[in-house]
Amino acid sequence: MRVLGVDPGLTRCGIGVVEGVAGRPLTMKGVGVVRTPADISVAERLVMIEQGIEQWLDRYSPEAVAVERVFSQHNVRTVMGTAQASAVAMLCAARRGLPVELHTPSEVKAAVTGAGRAEKAQVGTMVMRLLRLDEPPRPADAADALALAICHIWRTPFQQRLNRLQQAHARHAAASSPGPGAGAQAAAADDTARAPKGTSR
Amino acid sequence: MRVLGVDPGLTRCGIGVVEGVAGRPLTMKGVGVVRTPADISVAERLVMIEQGIEQWLDRYSPEAVAVERVFSQHNVRTVMGTAQASAVAMLCAARRGLPVELHTPSEVKAAVTGAGRAEKAQVGTMVMRLLRLDEPPRPADAADALALAICHIWRTPFQQRLNRLQQAHARHAAASSPGPGAGAQAAAADDTARAPKGTSR
Repeated sequence: MRVLGVDPGLTRCGIGVVEGVAGRPLTMKGVGVVRTPADISVAERLVMIEQGIEQWLDRYSPEAVAVERVFSQHNVRTVMGTAQASAVAMLCAARRGLPVELHTPSEVKAAVTGAGRAEKAQVGTMVMRLLRLDEPPRPADAADALALAICHIWRTPFQQRLNRLQQAHARHAAASSPGPGAGAQAAAADDTARAPKGTSR
Repeated sequence: MRVLGVDPGLTRCGIGVVEGVAGRPLTMKGVGVVRTPADISVAERLVMIEQGIEQWLDRYSPEAVAVERVFSQHNVRTVMGTAQASAVAMLCAARRGLPVELHTPSEVKAAVTGAGRAEKAQVGTMVMRLLRLDEPPRPADAADALALAICHIWRTPFQQRLNRLQQAHARHAAASSPGPGAGAQAAAADDTARAPKGTSR
């Protein structure tokens, strides 16, 4: 699968495109940053981010988009800009019918480095190794966007299994039919049918 | 001038259109709410909000859009949704080249009630009186959107004077020319030229 990762920000939106499946070597298809100047209005910056993301989606036709989940524990001013930029990324993807998945920074770090509290540099180094690059991608936002895409590819089979189990459990609990096998099978079939769009939250 | 006010929210986006100029009775042109269901993904909700706002912009062709400025002091989960919805509102307006102005809740309350800490109900009552309606607009989000538009219309001449003064002052301070009158005049002329787009931040 081909995934476009977005590390959202008003000043710099990291973008990274990764192709592959879990358990196999992954390939970087593209990496970059959408930048907007600080001296224009927020509204105009959001329009520039929309145009930038649209170009990446047009050029790379990803099957899914992974966006960093924004928390508001951080710096107040930064977090509002991040939330606004992430809204534009989600909007661009969902408007095309692409599944959008949000991953927390800890999930991403844990996926690529094994540690949820890894340093920025460590993420860059692991991204470089996993994608067999000559050096860590720069700036850090670009490396983070690639890490998001990698995290998404690796988590997808796990997430699908989890969804399937949860649905099977829910059907089983709700079903009045005596045979649990039939209920679980129906849930599994249903999940397969929904899989292309079912990963959005 | 005709202003479309947006009280942003993921579940309910209040929309209100008001026409008039400061110092004259104002007219309500339209009021409503763009709603999205809580059981679809945030990305899909943002697409619905975009479609809803686009319809309002198409139908009422406002000259400016006023959006409530989001603060992150409030409830963490709510504020992220509000920031995301406000990003979509700003994006829709700026994409059309419309000036976007953000007003804080206190500015809006102070404008329509005279008190920055007014109650919700008081805002509704004042909006009803100012627009000569039979009853306060419901829900509160719709009343707030109208209050935003009223605030925008009333603040615009003041804001333009302020911008003009600030620019004149800046030119005057920077200018090496001996005549301050020429500098101030140039600044005023420049401000007038920028006025249609200059209100965005």
